[in-house]
Amino acid sequence: MNISIIGGGAWGTTLGQTLHDNGHRVLIYDINPKAVEKINNHFHPFFDTILPDEVVATTSLKEVIDFSNYFILSVPTKAVRSVLKEINEVLNKPSVFINVSKGIEPQTLKRVSEIVEEEIDKKNLEGFVVLTGPSHAEEVILRKLTLLVSSSKDQKLSEQIQLIFSNEQYLRVYTSNDLIGCEVGGAVKNAIAVISGACTGLGLGENARAAVITRGIIEIIRVVEIMGGKKETAYGLTGIGDLIVTASSENSRNFTAGKKIGQGIPVDQIYAEQKQTIEGIRTIEAMYHLAKEYNVELPMINAAYDIIFNDLPVKEALQNLLSRDLKSEDF
Amino acid sequence: MNISIIGGGAWGTTLGQTLHDNGHRVLIYDINPKAVEKINNHFHPFFDTILPDEVVATTSLKEVIDFSNYFILSVPTKAVRSVLKEINEVLNKPSVFINVSKGIEPQTLKRVSEIVEEEIDKKNLEGFVVLTGPSHAEEVILRKLTLLVSSSKDQKLSEQIQLIFSNEQYLRVYTSNDLIGCEVGGAVKNAIAVISGACTGLGLGENARAAVITRGIIEIIRVVEIMGGKKETAYGLTGIGDLIVTASSENSRNFTAGKKIGQGIPVDQIYAEQKQTIEGIRTIEAMYHLAKEYNVELPMINAAYDIIFNDLPVKEALQNLLSRDLKSEDF
Repeated sequence: MNISIIGGGAWGTTLGQTLHDNGHRVLIYDINPKAVEKINNHFHPFFDTILPDEVVATTSLKEVIDFSNYFILSVPTKAVRSVLKEINEVLNKPSVFINVSKGIEPQTLKRVSEIVEEEIDKKNLEGFVVLTGPSHAEEVILRKLTLLVSSSKDQKLSEQIQLIFSNEQYLRVYTSNDLIGCEVGGAVKNAIAVISGACTGLGLGENARAAVITRGIIEIIRVVEIMGGKKETAYGLTGIGDLIVTASSENSRNFTAGKKIGQGIPVDQIYAEQKQTIEGIRTIEAMYHLAKEYNVELPMINAAYDIIFNDLPVKEALQNLLSRDLKSEDF
Repeated sequence: MNISIIGGGAWGTTLGQTLHDNGHRVLIYDINPKAVEKINNHFHPFFDTILPDEVVATTSLKEVIDFSNYFILSVPTKAVRSVLKEINEVLNKPSVFINVSKGIEPQTLKRVSEIVEEEIDKKNLEGFVVLTGPSHAEEVILRKLTLLVSSSKDQKLSEQIQLIFSNEQYLRVYTSNDLIGCEVGGAVKNAIAVISGACTGLGLGENARAAVITRGIIEIIRVVEIMGGKKETAYGLTGIGDLIVTASSENSRNFTAGKKIGQGIPVDQIYAEQKQTIEGIRTIEAMYHLAKEYNVELPMINAAYDIIFNDLPVKEALQNLLSRDLKSEDF
C-alpha cells in the first residue's frame, strides 16, 4: 500500500520506518526543508538513526496528496486545523485520516476527529482512525516491542489500520470501539505528565510520582466521561498505559518540560529551548477551561494551570493539593 | 504512644523513624542480633542512614510485647505465621496488629489478616489494620513525600492508624474500607513487578513495560474480585499506585529479581544472592494455584510461573503471551 505521512517529526518519521518494515511504500510531507533533506539523506530528523532508503520525504503538499488516499496526521494539535484546510483545498478523492498526535484544541476543546470532520469535505472523508498508546518514538525506531490501539467509529477501518501497522517483530495493535476515550486519554495524559515532571523537578521521588500518576488517572477518567468516552478505556493502554510511559520518562517532552518547571525555570524559557511542541502545556490550558465549563473537579490540572499561567510557585501548589481534606481515597 | 515493631528490616526500621518523627516511642524486635546491634548503634540495617537515637531494637520478644499493645508486623509472609504463634504464647492483653508487609500465604492463599485471626487468641485481638501503598523505604527514610492507605474492618481503627502515621512533612495516609482489596493489591503487584523486571532484563523498553503494567492491572483486579475485594481499590494507591512504584524501579527487590530472570540468571542463584525476601516470586506461586482453583485467566502470572518453576525461556514465554489472539483490548 501507499501511505502518506503528514508531518516529518519524531513520531511521523518513526512510523514511516514501521510502515516500510511492514512492506508499505511511504511518503512523508513536512513544511521544513531541512527535515525533508535529512530524511532524504536517510537520517532520522530527531534521533541518531539511519532510515531505510525507501523512507522518503517532500515539501510538496500536492505530491503527498497524490501519493495515496491514506493520510497519517502527525502534526501538533495547534497546527492540525490549518494543515487540514490546506489539504482539503487540494484533495480530490475519498481518503482515510489516521491521527497519531495527542492533543485537544484549546480554544474549542475539540478532538482531532472533530476537527477533521469540520475541515475535510464530506465527500472526501472516507473515515477517521486514531492510533495511540504507550509509545516512545525513541524505542519504536529501535524496533522495541510496543503495543498500540487503533480506534474508529468504523470497526472495519480500525481493523484495517491494525493490520497495516502490526508486525510479528515489535509492533502489536489492538482495536477499540471507543474513539472518544482513546482520543481524550492520549491528550490528557500529557497534562498529567507535566505535573509528574514538576514533582520530580522539585526533588520528590518515585513514591510521590506514583501517587501523582494514580490520582491523575482519576482526572483523566473524569474528562473522558464528560466528553462521552468510556471509563474502561482510560484504564487501558491509551489511558493508564500511555500515562505511565509519559509521566516518568526523560524521553517524554511533557515530563521534561514539567521537570524544568519544578526546577523553577520560567515557562517562556522552556518554550524557547524546546524545538518540539509540548502538547501537555496546551492540554493543561484546555482542561482548565473544560473543568470550569463542565464544573468538574480536576485539582491537579488546576494546580498545573496556576503554576504555568499564574506564576504560582510549584511548592505552594503542591502544598495546596496535599492539604485538601482527603481523608479517604475517593474515585 | 508506645508502638512495637516486629521485624527490623528495611521497611520496619524506616517506619520506626517515621513514628519517632511523629512523636511516638518505638521498640523494634528482630531475631537477628546483628540487625539489632546496628539499629542500637543508630545505623539503618539496610541503608546508609543515621537513625534517631530513640529508635531502638531488641532480640527479646517478651520485651517488645511488654512494650505496647500496638504491633506493626513487618516480617516476610512466609515467616508471619510462626512469628504470630510465638507472640500469641506470650501476649496477655488486647492488642492491635498493623501489617505492613505485602504477600499472600502460598499454601493456603490466605491474607495476613486471616493468618492473624487464626493465630492470635480472640480475646487478645483488638483489631487488624493493613498499611500499604506506593512506598520505597529508600525514600521514606529520606523523608520524601509518600502517600499510604490504612484499611481495616473497623473504620475507627483505620482512622487512628491514619493519624498515628500521618505528618505534615512527608507522610499522608488515606483510609479505605476495603481491607481485602488493599491486602490483595499489595501482594499481587509484587508478582507483576517480577514480570516487568523480566521484560527489562530481556532488553525491552518503557513501551513494553507500560504495556505489561497496564495488562497487569487487569490481572490484579481479577484476583481482588475473586478474593472478595473491590475493583475500585485496585485502581487506587494500593493497586495501580503500588504497581507503578514497584514495577519500574531498581529500588524494588521484585523488579530487580525479575530483571535477573530476564537476563537468564537461574532463580536459585538469585535467591542465594538476595538477602531480603522476594515476595513477588512466592506470590506468583500463590496466584498460579489460585488461578487454577478459581478457574480465572491470569496469563502473565502463568507465564511467570512457567519461567520460574518450569524453566520456560523468558523470550518464549513472552512470545506465547503476545501471540495470544487479543484483537481488542479486553477488561
